[in-house]
Amino acid sequence: MGKIKIPETMTVAVLNAYEGADAISIERRPVPKPGRDEVLVKVAFSPINPSDLATLKGHYGFKDPTPIVPGGEGAGEVVAAGPGFMANYFLGKKVACAGWGAGGGVWSEYVVKSVKGGVLPLKKSLSFEQGAMSIINPLTAMAFIDISKKGAHKAILLTAAASSLGKMVNNLGRKEGIQVVNIVRRDQQVELLKAQGAEIVLNSNETGFEERLHDVCYQTNTRLAFDAVAGELTNQVLNAMPQDSKVLVFSALSQQKVQVSPDQLIFENKMLDGFWLGPWMSNQNVLKIIQLWKRVQKQIPNHLKSEVRKIYPIQEVKEAIHEYTRQMTRGKILLKMS
Amino acid sequence: MGKIKIPETMTVAVLNAYEGADAISIERRPVPKPGRDEVLVKVAFSPINPSDLATLKGHYGFKDPTPIVPGGEGAGEVVAAGPGFMANYFLGKKVACAGWGAGGGVWSEYVVKSVKGGVLPLKKSLSFEQGAMSIINPLTAMAFIDISKKGAHKAILLTAAASSLGKMVNNLGRKEGIQVVNIVRRDQQVELLKAQGAEIVLNSNETGFEERLHDVCYQTNTRLAFDAVAGELTNQVLNAMPQDSKVLVFSALSQQKVQVSPDQLIFENKMLDGFWLGPWMSNQNVLKIIQLWKRVQKQIPNHLKSEVRKIYPIQEVKEAIHEYTRQMTRGKILLKMS
Repeated sequence: MGKIKIPETMTVAVLNAYEGADAISIERRPVPKPGRDEVLVKVAFSPINPSDLATLKGHYGFKDPTPIVPGGEGAGEVVAAGPGFMANYFLGKKVACAGWGAGGGVWSEYVVKSVKGGVLPLKKSLSFEQGAMSIINPLTAMAFIDISKKGAHKAILLTAAASSLGKMVNNLGRKEGIQVVNIVRRDQQVELLKAQGAEIVLNSNETGFEERLHDVCYQTNTRLAFDAVAGELTNQVLNAMPQDSKVLVFSALSQQKVQVSPDQLIFENKMLDGFWLGPWMSNQNVLKIIQLWKRVQKQIPNHLKSEVRKIYPIQEVKEAIHEYTRQMTRGKILLKMS
Repeated sequence: MGKIKIPETMTVAVLNAYEGADAISIERRPVPKPGRDEVLVKVAFSPINPSDLATLKGHYGFKDPTPIVPGGEGAGEVVAAGPGFMANYFLGKKVACAGWGAGGGVWSEYVVKSVKGGVLPLKKSLSFEQGAMSIINPLTAMAFIDISKKGAHKAILLTAAASSLGKMVNNLGRKEGIQVVNIVRRDQQVELLKAQGAEIVLNSNETGFEERLHDVCYQTNTRLAFDAVAGELTNQVLNAMPQDSKVLVFSALSQQKVQVSPDQLIFENKMLDGFWLGPWMSNQNVLKIIQLWKRVQKQIPNHLKSEVRKIYPIQEVKEAIHEYTRQMTRGKILLKMS
């Protein structure tokens, strides 16, 4: 690659208080310098994920004192490297970068990331757009399937299933012979998922939902659920599944507490646990991560593809968030960093 | 033993609907005959336990169609045996009997029980009164300590800790070097437990309870809780403990759903599970059960002793239940069967 001219300052989205999109301002800041084992990434695109919305309201797992830079994942090019063999290896490469760990969020024109987990190499043939959405949803979908296979589950349940993640879980499930019981909130979402090939889709707002869910879970022997909604839906799901079932809560779109009938825990041997991608990945060995990442890249053009609904320049991040909040299915919203 | 004359009929407490004590009637029924590997027990005493109250309202794990005979445990003498070596071994022996499995509840003058788990031999030196309370609370307390030791916990948390069970868990905990964080609802219960030697007792109705609980759990590194209350208290307990903690719900005295903040499950790697004595025992091997039972019998005179507040004849079962419901600490209520 040729020598890229790195400017003195850059555009950054800054969250000034954990009060949502309106607390974001666009600022100019000095471009940071990479230290040992670090690289400077010129970020191309970053999506808005549900975990970003949670971060903006202070409901996510990381909650550093404001001001912070949000943005959970993105993709770009490594334009400078600090000392260290690995950092130099990445120089000039196309990478996906995670918004966690050192360097923080990626809603920024440039970002410094550690080569120890902060950046992942992208195949040249992948676009920056798809690369920007290659960590959180694809690896979460991979993790769900991995957990399901470890527990020898032939059927799993997924709430908020019309999301980009839901589509990926369904694709991978079909590929691996795992039946997915999908729960959505609207009839159009039922149609959307069925059009994509999903066999079982239930609308939680329909009369008779709980009885139908119970029947489906017993017929398919569904004993593992991945729940993104929380609130009363978690209880309905736990109640509907047979004895010895487990719900893994991984998001709380309802913004409500999880409800559980104690008799389900005591007498039905059911369990409630959580899932968070970061710690799950930390608990895998390096070879497993490399293997997963290879599969993710291979499948991004098909099973793990995210649709893009609209692209906003970073300066319009507030509008972008409002558009995403208005409609969280039918394609992702991307931010273009420069 | 001499030949005991077995009458044709007996007095039985019958629950006619899952509507609590008022739905109980006292009836005369034929005395049942033991079949192969079964014995006929002349029941002496049976306690009223929280699990009995749950059964009466249909909130327990077993829910056969009414009418049913309630009563989760008791003690008596084996007065007749069906065919089979083991059944004959028990003839004339003092036994504790469980209200689960074949034969049902023990609020009955006579009851038929399988020798495969329905009766446990009692030492001659134990009174029928203490023997009647030797299964549920003592084995639950033993199980809690066993689970705690398996997880290498040096401190555990217990709600509704002023109960008979609470006293036992505290006694065993002291013996085994496991610190118990006790939660109660009233100041007198704090005093009661402290007078019995408990070091840490918190009143959940006191201002600043949650902060104090948080501090105590962090100081003692308490990551395992046994919760008999459910409702919002479960959430307070889960919130107060450090990362990677677990609450085992084993009763729901509040009669409310368990509440959990999803972020505790997702970001703090906390877990919610249940505990039920029957399945827990079924999952242990026979040698372990024999060993536990020996220890229970040895310790009933001291660490696992239940105080008796009052004894009612079975004919006054409704009054007995009302008295127990009025005041569930400071001694058990026993039913005398004949």
